[in-house]
Amino acid sequence: MLSAVIVETRKPRDFIDVTTRVQSVVETASVADGICVVYSPHTTAAITINENADPDVVADLLKAYTDLLGDEARFRHAEGNSGAHALTSLVGPSVSIPIHSGRLVLGRWQAVYFCEFDGPRERTMHVQVIGERGGSREVPS
Amino acid sequence: MLSAVIVETRKPRDFIDVTTRVQSVVETASVADGICVVYSPHTTAAITINENADPDVVADLLKAYTDLLGDEARFRHAEGNSGAHALTSLVGPSVSIPIHSGRLVLGRWQAVYFCEFDGPRERTMHVQVIGERGGSREVPS
Amino acid sequence: MLSAVIVETRKPRDFIDVTTRVQSVVETASVADGICVVYSPHTTAAITINENADPDVVADLLKAYTDLLGDEARFRHAEGNSGAHALTSLVGPSVSIPIHSGRLVLGRWQAVYFCEFDGPRERTMHVQVIGERGGSREVPS
Repeated sequence: MLSAVIVETRKPRDFIDVTTRVQSVVETASVADGICVVYSPHTTAAITINENADPDVVADLLKAYTDLLGDEARFRHAEGNSGAHALTSLVGPSVSIPIHSGRLVLGRWQAVYFCEFDGPRERTMHVQVIGERGGSREVPS
Repeated sequence: MLSAVIVETRKPRDFIDVTTRVQSVVETASVADGICVVYSPHTTAAITINENADPDVVADLLKAYTDLLGDEARFRHAEGNSGAHALTSLVGPSVSIPIHSGRLVLGRWQAVYFCEFDGPRERTMHVQVIGERGGSREVPS
Repeated sequence: MLSAVIVETRKPRDFIDVTTRVQSVVETASVADGICVVYSPHTTAAITINENADPDVVADLLKAYTDLLGDEARFRHAEGNSGAHALTSLVGPSVSIPIHSGRLVLGRWQAVYFCEFDGPRERTMHVQVIGERGGSREVPS
């Protein structure tokens, strides 16, 4: 079952914790055992999983990734956001997370992040849930 | 249903738009609601999703990724393509795309790219489609 | 079917070949046609696929990725492992591999690696297998 979730971003570059919204879609889907694909349909925004305990981690990631791409002026694309496109393919347009007993199998410190690299904008995130439904082992009489 | 698609690459490094070929596999699979995994079985070629409107974006990505890895001479692997191996794991060997109503849920500007980092070569790309088939809600009488 | 596999890492940064362990889970799952998601529930350890023939490739990848992130001292996170967090999101927390005829569709030179970026530690790796079971086309009489 596919769901579209709107994500409002407020800065040029930011990581927004969307874990609760993804978990909510998974619960509605009633899949007991399967996988969840969280997908960005944009070319300057990615999806990742990282720590949610210390906000300095997200600040450091944004610094590390901006340093990684270097001077934007050496690129040709007229919109001036080639660094954002390059980061989107490095971080990746989606994550796939196992589902067990109807819930995401996230580690203790993991959160799902929507990664804005060229905002602020109103973005969409797709959440696809597939697998075996809970209670499906019963045969209707 | 798994399909193998041949991709001929023509340069040492290049991104080849394979969106139409992937969409064609999805249509043949008759999966109404599910996911499509596009997979590179190679260690110096990756799969990504990025913009297809302005060809400068792909040129900028190739430049950005070559700059990222730096001087190949500092590596030990005798084949001299460690930079290609490193990029393959950064961009990633596959993408997972939701399928809805029998079609890939790609954003307006998104294309699926086969990323050659050590060509030119004849490559293979695997496309796996899983999920619920269209019309499967009918119970045979 | 979800399985948890323990991975003992022995160095601060290392890539551990887990291909045999993942293939073993796939065989137990009895899925003929589907996908396998190998997932790290950690925020400083990733999963990737790369060459297993020449050990210099893994050594070069570790060097390339350490060079990529640069000086750790410029980050704020008090644990001093922001480079490890940044690499985890670049390499990615999971890989998705097609399954055909009950086996992983890996290329000739491909191995699945658990990527430790902040060890040594005892880590967990989740392996989720979904798809159509072998022999499931028979209708019970």
